[in-house]
Amino acid sequence: MPTSAPALTPFLAVDTAVLEANIDSMAAHARSLGVALRPHAKTHKSAEVARLQQGAGATGLTVATLTEAEAFAAHGAADLFIAYPLWLDDARGARLRRLAEDVALQVGADSVEGVRRLAGQLAGTSAEVLVEVDSGHHRSGVAPGTAGAVASAAVDAGLPVAGVFTFPGHSYAAGGRRAAAADEQAALAEATASLSSVGVPARVVSGGSTPSAEYVSGGVLTELRPGVYVFGDAQQWELGTIGPDRIALTAYATVVSHAGGRAVLDAGSKVLGADRAGYATGFGRLLDHPEARIVILSEHHAVVDLAGGALPPLGSVVRVVPNHVCAAVNLADALVAVTPSGMTPWPLIARGANS
Amino acid sequence: MPTSAPALTPFLAVDTAVLEANIDSMAAHARSLGVALRPHAKTHKSAEVARLQQGAGATGLTVATLTEAEAFAAHGAADLFIAYPLWLDDARGARLRRLAEDVALQVGADSVEGVRRLAGQLAGTSAEVLVEVDSGHHRSGVAPGTAGAVASAAVDAGLPVAGVFTFPGHSYAAGGRRAAAADEQAALAEATASLSSVGVPARVVSGGSTPSAEYVSGGVLTELRPGVYVFGDAQQWELGTIGPDRIALTAYATVVSHAGGRAVLDAGSKVLGADRAGYATGFGRLLDHPEARIVILSEHHAVVDLAGGALPPLGSVVRVVPNHVCAAVNLADALVAVTPSGMTPWPLIARGANS
Repeated sequence: MPTSAPALTPFLAVDTAVLEANIDSMAAHARSLGVALRPHAKTHKSAEVARLQQGAGATGLTVATLTEAEAFAAHGAADLFIAYPLWLDDARGARLRRLAEDVALQVGADSVEGVRRLAGQLAGTSAEVLVEVDSGHHRSGVAPGTAGAVASAAVDAGLPVAGVFTFPGHSYAAGGRRAAAADEQAALAEATASLSSVGVPARVVSGGSTPSAEYVSGGVLTELRPGVYVFGDAQQWELGTIGPDRIALTAYATVVSHAGGRAVLDAGSKVLGADRAGYATGFGRLLDHPEARIVILSEHHAVVDLAGGALPPLGSVVRVVPNHVCAAVNLADALVAVTPSGMTPWPLIARGANS
Repeated sequence: MPTSAPALTPFLAVDTAVLEANIDSMAAHARSLGVALRPHAKTHKSAEVARLQQGAGATGLTVATLTEAEAFAAHGAADLFIAYPLWLDDARGARLRRLAEDVALQVGADSVEGVRRLAGQLAGTSAEVLVEVDSGHHRSGVAPGTAGAVASAAVDAGLPVAGVFTFPGHSYAAGGRRAAAADEQAALAEATASLSSVGVPARVVSGGSTPSAEYVSGGVLTELRPGVYVFGDAQQWELGTIGPDRIALTAYATVVSHAGGRAVLDAGSKVLGADRAGYATGFGRLLDHPEARIVILSEHHAVVDLAGGALPPLGSVVRVVPNHVCAAVNLADALVAVTPSGMTPWPLIARGANS
């Protein structure tokens, strides 16, 4: 635990020993299931973390946007899946065609209209499509039994179909992890059958979120796409996915005030993000004070109730666990890798790469 | 309303006509009260917006951090107030001393310990301190009646005291705007008296938030520091501070899916921010569909329930009103100024400037 203030708080620090243990643990889990691991790089946006994942056996990376895909390709990624129902205009189509010349590329689709636009831009390239299905999160994706119609439209338009994918985002609920994994498996099995019924084999059957990954069983999925597991966060801690010993990323923050008998920190929502799920017990936690909660969060203030514990002194540095680490990372320009020998900046190569 | 997709959605667009009307309106309000206007630049982080504010008579700018202050000074700001209880280490102290050579500089403090550290770094420069008081938001600031003790400590340590300030953040509550303005006035009056009782005159008595500004009356405050008023956002719309005609900043987003009979947009929490106050009716709204609400928000998806209205077509572009515009701006690298003659990028000079 840090005890003196570096000059530059607030900043995001990565404990590389915990990071590497997390990466190895998920890689071993995927191997034990006999499935490929294609981690979601939107969490970390870091070429260094991607290299560690690939060194542990990841078969490729998942990204959310075209610009993220371009950024990771520029840093050596050779196999990328944009797990998003892309709606292609001509400008994006041209960029995707260029990308497909350099890397193995898969993209998502969740409508007949969308897949036809993809085909209009990508047919004849090496790109493949995966049909997104809704497994219970009710965000995007078609009903699993209708996946075949989208796949057929792709094939008819000249775009190869690799398979199906889903994001069981309803795993982010108290007690919801195991049920979401079961929903995911059932939806992907139904979608695979739907493709089969129109004569399209699903080579890739892709699922997986960090909260649900533990409950995936073998047999249906061929691939997992968790993201958050590399760093952990307060959401995973509170969902029970991990304990605090698995949290690799924290915001180092200085105590600037004791107003109202609480600790006011210089890391606010512009550092931590403002995510607060229904099950969250606060706006973030302190790694070294497990009972403490951030009870007020504004842009540059986190007000911490120590729950009766001693107030950290004015000017001291504490380690804050953001609720949602993907949001925190996307607010920073670099991470600071903390090793026994010191601190090293890790630039973020895709911060704000939303288009 | 845009009807075709620019290549680069999602992006943040500023309607400059609405922006200028908002700036003129708040400037006129401050003039009518006989108080100075020192807008908070953390909202816009834009040299162009700052120039418009100064052209309309702003006496200076408010910022939240040292790095923001340096950024605006580098773009011509000559009078800056860091409205934050700074805890100075040597590195920050050296930067502040350099800054105080170039601009009129005021900084905040809310403890005797903090003000002594400030004095240790800044005594002998042109910098002045304002004592922060808590007017009911219960975030930072001392009890108003104890402001004199902090002011005395500053004077004793050789640091000039300009006055007192507060942020009535509890104006961000349903029906809370008028009461917060009254609390603000009472707290600042008590704090001014507390300074007077120790022989320190308060030349500056500074308050003001966008929701409470309308209810400020003359006589106690000498200065207002609203920030959000330049752009407006869904929070201000829902608090009743403004109507949708006063919203100058929106995220242009493309409809990428109609999954579940809703519109899924490509602007998620990494564009809009994840702020959702207790009084908010969703994660954001659509400017041209007032009944619609964002009901699910993840990093790259906003799922919009149109409340029975027609779904905007796949591939069409809609204008999203973020809940909290300061958070949205801090996620972007530039704004896009929309005028009758076209679109012009406005770089953000202090994005991520949290230290």
